[in-house]
Amino acid sequence: MRAAVYYGPNKVSIDDVPDPAPAHGEVKVRVGFNGICGTDLHEYFAGPIFIPTSPHALTGNQAPLVLGHEFSGTITEIGPGVDGFSEGDRVAIEPIYRCGTCGPCASGRYNICKFIGFHGLMSDGGMAESTVVPQNMLHKLPDSVSLQLGALVEPMSVAYHAAKLGNVRAGDTAVVMGAGPIGIGVWFALKGLGLDDVYVVEPSPVRRASIENLGAKTLDPTSVNVAEFIGDHTGGSGVDAAYDAAGVQPAVETALQCIGAHKPLVSVAIYEKPLETPLLNLVMNESRIQGSLCYTGDDYRAVIDLMANGHYDTTGWVTTIPIEQVVDEGFHALHAGKKMKVLIDPSL
Amino acid sequence: MRAAVYYGPNKVSIDDVPDPAPAHGEVKVRVGFNGICGTDLHEYFAGPIFIPTSPHALTGNQAPLVLGHEFSGTITEIGPGVDGFSEGDRVAIEPIYRCGTCGPCASGRYNICKFIGFHGLMSDGGMAESTVVPQNMLHKLPDSVSLQLGALVEPMSVAYHAAKLGNVRAGDTAVVMGAGPIGIGVWFALKGLGLDDVYVVEPSPVRRASIENLGAKTLDPTSVNVAEFIGDHTGGSGVDAAYDAAGVQPAVETALQCIGAHKPLVSVAIYEKPLETPLLNLVMNESRIQGSLCYTGDDYRAVIDLMANGHYDTTGWVTTIPIEQVVDEGFHALHAGKKMKVLIDPSL
Ligand SMILES: [Zn+2]
Ligand SMILES: [Zn+2]
Ligand SMILES: [Zn+2]
Ligand SMILES: [Zn+2]
Repeated sequence: MRAAVYYGPNKVSIDDVPDPAPAHGEVKVRVGFNGICGTDLHEYFAGPIFIPTSPHALTGNQAPLVLGHEFSGTITEIGPGVDGFSEGDRVAIEPIYRCGTCGPCASGRYNICKFIGFHGLMSDGGMAESTVVPQNMLHKLPDSVSLQLGALVEPMSVAYHAAKLGNVRAGDTAVVMGAGPIGIGVWFALKGLGLDDVYVVEPSPVRRASIENLGAKTLDPTSVNVAEFIGDHTGGSGVDAAYDAAGVQPAVETALQCIGAHKPLVSVAIYEKPLETPLLNLVMNESRIQGSLCYTGDDYRAVIDLMANGHYDTTGWVTTIPIEQVVDEGFHALHAGKKMKVLIDPSL
Repeated sequence: MRAAVYYGPNKVSIDDVPDPAPAHGEVKVRVGFNGICGTDLHEYFAGPIFIPTSPHALTGNQAPLVLGHEFSGTITEIGPGVDGFSEGDRVAIEPIYRCGTCGPCASGRYNICKFIGFHGLMSDGGMAESTVVPQNMLHKLPDSVSLQLGALVEPMSVAYHAAKLGNVRAGDTAVVMGAGPIGIGVWFALKGLGLDDVYVVEPSPVRRASIENLGAKTLDPTSVNVAEFIGDHTGGSGVDAAYDAAGVQPAVETALQCIGAHKPLVSVAIYEKPLETPLLNLVMNESRIQGSLCYTGDDYRAVIDLMANGHYDTTGWVTTIPIEQVVDEGFHALHAGKKMKVLIDPSL
């Protein structure tokens, strides 16, 4: 079968690899769609970062590996010891391996498992015609959720998890810094949680237009003083939650000026380096910066429910390409900002 | 009466000023002791910062002003409309004016009142033989609490409030960055909350010796890898709470490496500038940085209770000086690190 194999930085090729077979507790999934995420770009241009170059503690695998951790598909084979699933089931994959023994895993927070194992980074993943995954990674998709949407459950769950960590309630106010795929996901999640009064702050006109088209209110930080605007808009009290899905210093600075007393700035970005952070803002109104990483099954279920209700709209920000084009139309196009979210269709 | 009057940077003199008289709702207090705090040093060496140079929104006052917001004393005169207090009552003063109308005040969090009004910064304070304060600033001191301790209720409440914001429980583990007066106060507060497993991280040998003498376990960050030590000490899980009472970059960096998953670093420092902060640490274990400012009455009552039980020990870190020496033996000695906490006795 064809698969996008990672050998090292700037070295991903579409190879013919052996078809995998499910071991005990695993199923084989024919991949419908697999999204390319920022992590994949980092691995391609500056890796290996997460991809192991010696056997990984949980999976025993190492590069070269098949990429792809954001995917959906159809079960084509059931391994021994699997129950509750059948051939033909359409599924989204929650790609976190769980050590089951570390402190976070023991308390159900396997999203921050100390061993960080991802299907498609620490084992062969979904940029292939098929892949095998353990049963505990499977979430069934209702008929009303397409396989394209199914491949977006992963990044939308990253965003949903972050949205929840903001402790928001219906009717609350929020700002979201950044209108990339995670910023879009946070906006959808907040809407799903009953927040109508949300501003998305994004300097790129293309990204602003894209999320406005979905119905979002936006602010251009190059022409509006965002902190002043939010101050006026909230009668001086600040927003109930801010989200950093941008990961850059001006976003963090601005967000800290927008949050209200005892309210959070939720960080759902991968910061490449320490940023100059005005911690005094936190002290003066007893607010906080809260980190958010990945998701757990609750987030997957919530996102799939919202998808089943027609909540997510892929218009204008999601593009599908054949697996052969993963390097040029995938990694390079995303890196150059020519696309926002790319799904690979391994059947093309 | 004699008072330490602030005219501007490097300009504080002991002047003879009129004795104040209590207005409606106020009492006159003969000051027992008044502590010098970091804020006073900032005002002296680099101010005016908080001291208003035009009439303050809550107090209507402006420089020149009598300094002093950390004090205790004895009531000598009761103004009209005051009840529940009598001449001769020994009191600690909680020096925050409350606008009563801003969002934080409306929810009881007057410590983060938007108008920031302090007795002794935005009005004539406690570095004087007497001062007048509104009744809602008074906390009676039990007989077992000396007026020296009474003057320490303010800074110890700053620390106690921060300790509580760490959401700690008896038996939890913690690290405290910095063994200045607030670091010492956080250590006392954590001990009072039932935490025995607390390490105080402090590079100065003098400060380490001082808090060790009170019974604290310390770490010298210039000779020990604090993050590794804490990692080993907690079996890899990190501490339940970290506290930054140092306000410098190495302290914040180290503290973020010490906190466990979903645990807080409480910031109880005045950061003079934005620090390079490794926010990625927050993301990877979903921890947070929580700001802490001042205190409310609950903290005062808790600290006074602990004091009544003999919990606080001033040995080795508190010095008393006559009011005449406030500049040389107060501001300059503190600035040079020759003293840790200085109380002014206006009767000397
Ligand atoms: Zn991803
Ligand atoms: Zn684990
Ligand atoms: Zn103070
Ligand atoms: Zn107020």
